[in-house]
Amino acid sequence: MKLRKFTIADASLERSPGQEADIFVGNLVDERQGGPITIGYGRYAPHQSLAETMAVDDVMIVLEGRLTVSTEAGTIVAGASDIVYMPKGEAVTIRTDEEGALTAYVTYPHWQPAHA
Amino acid sequence: MKLRKFTIADASLERSPGQEADIFVGNLVDERQGGPITIGYGRYAPHQSLAETMAVDDVMIVLEGRLTVSTEAGTIVAGASDIVYMPKGEAVTIRTDEEGALTAYVTYPHWQPAHA
Repeated sequence: MKLRKFTIADASLERSPGQEADIFVGNLVDERQGGPITIGYGRYAPHQSLAETMAVDDVMIVLEGRLTVSTEAGTIVAGASDIVYMPKGEAVTIRTDEEGALTAYVTYPHWQPAHA
Repeated sequence: MKLRKFTIADASLERSPGQEADIFVGNLVDERQGGPITIGYGRYAPHQSLAETMAVDDVMIVLEGRLTVSTEAGTIVAGASDIVYMPKGEAVTIRTDEEGALTAYVTYPHWQPAHA
């Protein structure tokens, strides 16, 4: 692979697989490019909720808006420029409030079940 | 590891190892936590330049300001919310203009020579 630059306009956002919520994700780099990581953008409508047990290590960088992420250990609130690290195996519930959110994400290894 | 949230205030920024430029990086997650990836923030003063051959796959998310990244194949310009993917082995020169830049980064595997 060569140097690449991506903007949100490059992402083909699709409803997060297996979910009913208005949460849309789009991979920009994944297993098709042969590298080790998946890169993409996620857009969360206001007042959405998504529960998931992490199949991979997933790093979300909040670009706009706000997210809360809950586990059995507690809840964190992340706003613009904050980083949320969701390690493999964690059971998380991601929620948005009235703002919704835009995120960038990087996963290792590839988030194949969700994005293949 | 458990769910973690980071803000720029959590990072202990230090001059990028082996460089003279006013470019400061701070790891928030690295090999010490036992996971597969390194996560951190980078702050670039205005009018700086850093040349580096990538030892790892490195994803930069621009949070503020603007960066240009050049390889022998050309130059990209990245602003807020843009993602720059610098694959292992690429020889890159990262430059800032009068704005400087704030970035979040995720590397796989750990960026050990620079951050250990």
